[in-house]
Parts: sequence; C-alpha cells; structure tokens
Amino acid sequence: MSPGVDPDRVLAGDRVAISRAISIVENDAPGAQLLLDGLFRKTGRAYRLGITGPPGAGKSTITSRLARYYRTQGRTVGILAVDPTSPFTGGALLGDRVRMGEVELDAGVFIRSMASRGSLGGLSRKATEAADILDAAGKDVILLETVGVGQSELDIARAADTTVVVLVPESGDSIQAMKAGLMEIADFFVLNKADRAGADQAVTGLQMILGFRASGAWSPAVLKTVASTGEGIVEVAQEVEAHRRYLEESGGLLHRRRLRLEDRIAGLVEDAVREQLWNAESRELLHRRAGEALGGGVTPYGAAGELVTLFRRDHRS
Amino acid sequence: MSPGVDPDRVLAGDRVAISRAISIVENDAPGAQLLLDGLFRKTGRAYRLGITGPPGAGKSTITSRLARYYRTQGRTVGILAVDPTSPFTGGALLGDRVRMGEVELDAGVFIRSMASRGSLGGLSRKATEAADILDAAGKDVILLETVGVGQSELDIARAADTTVVVLVPESGDSIQAMKAGLMEIADFFVLNKADRAGADQAVTGLQMILGFRASGAWSPAVLKTVASTGEGIVEVAQEVEAHRRYLEESGGLLHRRRLRLEDRIAGLVEDAVREQLWNAESRELLHRRAGEALGGGVTPYGAAGELVTLFRRDHRS
Repeated sequence: MSPGVDPDRVLAGDRVAISRAISIVENDAPGAQLLLDGLFRKTGRAYRLGITGPPGAGKSTITSRLARYYRTQGRTVGILAVDPTSPFTGGALLGDRVRMGEVELDAGVFIRSMASRGSLGGLSRKATEAADILDAAGKDVILLETVGVGQSELDIARAADTTVVVLVPESGDSIQAMKAGLMEIADFFVLNKADRAGADQAVTGLQMILGFRASGAWSPAVLKTVASTGEGIVEVAQEVEAHRRYLEESGGLLHRRRLRLEDRIAGLVEDAVREQLWNAESRELLHRRAGEALGGGVTPYGAAGELVTLFRRDHRS
Repeated sequence: MSPGVDPDRVLAGDRVAISRAISIVENDAPGAQLLLDGLFRKTGRAYRLGITGPPGAGKSTITSRLARYYRTQGRTVGILAVDPTSPFTGGALLGDRVRMGEVELDAGVFIRSMASRGSLGGLSRKATEAADILDAAGKDVILLETVGVGQSELDIARAADTTVVVLVPESGDSIQAMKAGLMEIADFFVLNKADRAGADQAVTGLQMILGFRASGAWSPAVLKTVASTGEGIVEVAQEVEAHRRYLEESGGLLHRRRLRLEDRIAGLVEDAVREQLWNAESRELLHRRAGEALGGGVTPYGAAGELVTLFRRDHRS
C-alpha cells in the first residue's frame, strides 16, 4: 500500500492514478519506492524511445507526429517530456506542450512534462521510474523527449531502448554533434526541417562522420523529415522498428536493459548509503570542520577522512 | 610528495608545474588529493570570478578583456575555461581559446581549458580544485568561464565568489534567463553586444524581472558591454569590486566560502564511501541481481536492500 495512489488503478490505466503516481515519483514523496517496487514486475512490455537534440530542432512536433502515427496502428502511447534546463521553476514550461493539443485529446495517449528540479543526475532515474509507471499502466510505446544539453542526452539514452537524435540543417553542423557526444548515443539521426536550404549538405556531412566510426553490425542511418507536415514520420517509425528487431535478435535489447537495471540498483544503493551517512551528528561535524578549514585549521581532505572514519564506526550492522 | 609535480614549484608560480598539477587534478591521477591537501593552506587569497551565459554570448572575449584590464592594474590572472558540453572528447575545443592569443602571451596570465569528461557533477569540484592550484600559485584573480547549459552554471556559481551572467540582446529574452535559473545565480548581469538592436529593451526586460525579486541588501545590476571593442569592461571590473566589498563587509564572502568547503568535504566523503561500496564482490552481486531483475526474479528495490545490508556487514571499522 502506498499513500495517495492505488496501484491497481495504475495497472488498469486510469489517467488520474498514472498522473498521481508520476507526481509521487517526481517529488520523491513517501511511498514512491514502495509503489515502484509493487509495479516493477508488470514492466518490460513497453518499448522506450528516446528523442533528443538541440533546442528548436522540432522534437516536440516529431514526438507528437509519432504518437499520432502509433495511434493509427492501434498502439497506446506515453509521452514524457523532460526539461533539463529548468532546475528552478519546478515545472517544465508549457510552450511546446501546447502544440501537442491534438494528441492530448486522445485517450490512448498520456502526456507528462517533467522538470529536472536541480538534479541533473536524477534525470535518468526519474525518467526511468516514470516510464515504469506508464509501462505498467499498459502503454505500448513510451516516448522520452528531452532537450539535448550536455549531460541530459546521455541520461535519456540510458533510459531508452532506442535513441533518436533530431537535428536541423542549421544546427546540423556535424562538429557540434560530435562535440556534444551525440554521435555516441544516436541509434539513428533525423534531420528535421529538411525542406530548408542546406538539408542535403547536412545529411552528407553527418553520413561522412558516421562513416569514420568503427562499423559495428548496426549502422546509424540519417533520415529526413518535415515534421510540421508529417513528411518522413512513417519512415522514422519504421527505422525504430528495424532497430528494435536488430536489438531483439542480437541480444542487444536485453543487454541494454540489464545495464539500465545495474545503473538503477547501484543508484538506489548509493542513495541509501548516502542517507545513512548524513545525520544530525555528521552534518554538525561537517559544518564545524568547514569553518575550521576556512581558517586553515584543517584541510578538506583531513576533515573528509575523519567523517569517513566516523561513518564506518557508527554504521556497522 | 606527490608524483609528477613539485608542490614548491607550483607555489613559486612555475607555469609547467601549474599545468601539470591541473592535469593531475583533472585526470584524478594518483597523488591528486595529496597534492591538493598540501597546497590547501596556501589558498584563500585569490578572488574567484565566475563568468557564465549561453553559447555565443561573448564570454571568452569578456574574459580575455577582463584579464587584460586586471594586468594593467598589476594583478596576476588565472583563467579556467570549462566546457560542460564536451563529455566525450576529453578536451575542450580550442576555437574560443585561439581568440585569447593576446593575453596568453602575457606571463602574468595562466589559461587552461577543461572538459567535463562525462561527469557534470564533478565539474564544480574539478573547477574548485584547479582554482585552488592557481590560488596557491599566487594568482590574484581567477576567472572561471563556462557555457551555461542547465546544471553547469550552478556548478560554476558554486565554485566562484562572484558570478556574472553574460547575455546578448537576442539571447537576452528574460524568460529564457529565468527558466535556466540564471536569475538565481547572477550577482550581476552583463548585456554584451550592446551595440546591437534590441539592447535597451533587453536591459529593461531584465531590470523589470529583477525588480520582481524579493529585494535583499544587494541588487544585481545590468551592465552593457561591447566586448569586441572593450567598451564597458572597466565598469564590469568595478562592479566585481563593488560586489566583493559588499560580500566582505556583510560576511557573505566567508559564508559562501564556508558553504563551498562543506560541499567539497561532503563530496570527498561520499566519494570515499562509494569507493568502499563497490568492490569485486558487490559488483558481481549487482551484475547478477540485475540479470535476475530482468526476468522479474527480484525487483531493483529488493536487490538494492540486499547490497546495502552486505555493505553494512562488511565495512564496519
């Protein structure tokens, strides 16, 4: 039993229950772990697609178009739009979301915005947990959309089965993509706004760089879309299916999911140990030693050693 | 004694020794903590100025101009340019650095680029440690420059005594600044490229938003610069001095530095505990349980609980 939400209603796909469950997870509210623990064995059926790229590349439009396409195929969809650039507001801005109005009216689509709330490191974990809720609630496809800035695209790639990187002719400058590490995480690329000048050169540039990479069994393609008109969206969905088949047949899907579980368990362990570490006594000592370090009385390294020793003494089982 | 660098040569301001010391810290090489521990009591004299803002705002030019100004005042300068968008390349791109050529030829200025190497969380710590080296080496002013993307500006704000946020008329869209949390970390704003259209409106927009904030004793100003010509740079340096005096007189400087030391000690403690946590046995168990969780045999929460118990049993002092 977790306070605030009935797990059975989540499993039944109840929108209010799903929404409350995600809020509980997002806020690390009491009962969050118990709830997730209870739902865990109902997960694993949904396919998780990460969609990332620079601001203004059209990720929301592509996400919305993909959702609509999946609906025509009779598949239910969950959308998690994560805004890592919003550490303070405590809620992603709604600008992009408004444009999703059409899919939002469809009962087969559940849309949720999440802000990073100051914890970039927690982004991958929270996205995975929210995706678990949508997975347990029976969504067939989960679209994880995030603005690619620095670390955030790595986080989303870690939470997804397949990751699509969206670029536009202007941002599609391949050096930028390499620099940001996008080449390492993209299972394939989408060049959106492909009706603009420079689209073909951008595609060629990307393909050249991709050609330099050590070739494995899977070669990331570069697809062109004009998301505003829907052009190329079916091909994107087909490429996702092709990559999914590749991962399923090669064992890569189980491998990715196992690594994700390792990351997740390790994170839970480290959180629990950190929680045991910082209590009133150790915080008080930390505060005191920081003041002494300010005057040169101790060094941070000496103070840290003392705190580690204290922890090892006090926290034997 | 730390291998690879003679601390006395760092203290004497030797450029090669400083450079090697920063490399040791950046790579977490053996001896890094010992070196930093030895230098720590020689720190605290330098003033640390953080310079952040969106890509293309002209941060490097402002940094370079400020460095040149401080040199005319007879003060020595260290510049740390941190690139958080470069997790993979393992070295910040040199484009911006090249433009700094002029100050780089000056023996009173030490310039160093650092990449985040995949660890955004470590950015603040590494920047602080590298700044400690420059501080111990006798630099009067340390300029910490970073591209503001998501979490990185918070990291740099945590490592600096005073933080300046640089915007341009185009990026100066105040909602963007609020969204990115820049309003919370800026001790003052610089609107660069102020000769462009829209500069005055951008300044007014920023001032309006700043006016809405609960007013403390310090009101962040909005200064205009044209860094390419040097216009407004002296005023920026004067505002830094004004903020420094304010912090010194109000006790705010000691407060900020004490919080920084608390963060740093806490980080060292958590790193040490994490290192004790993951050994061959616990990693093997983690791997095994992740595989079982994949099949629904255990949940991540159950597996984490088991690993925490194992840790508490094995790591008593």
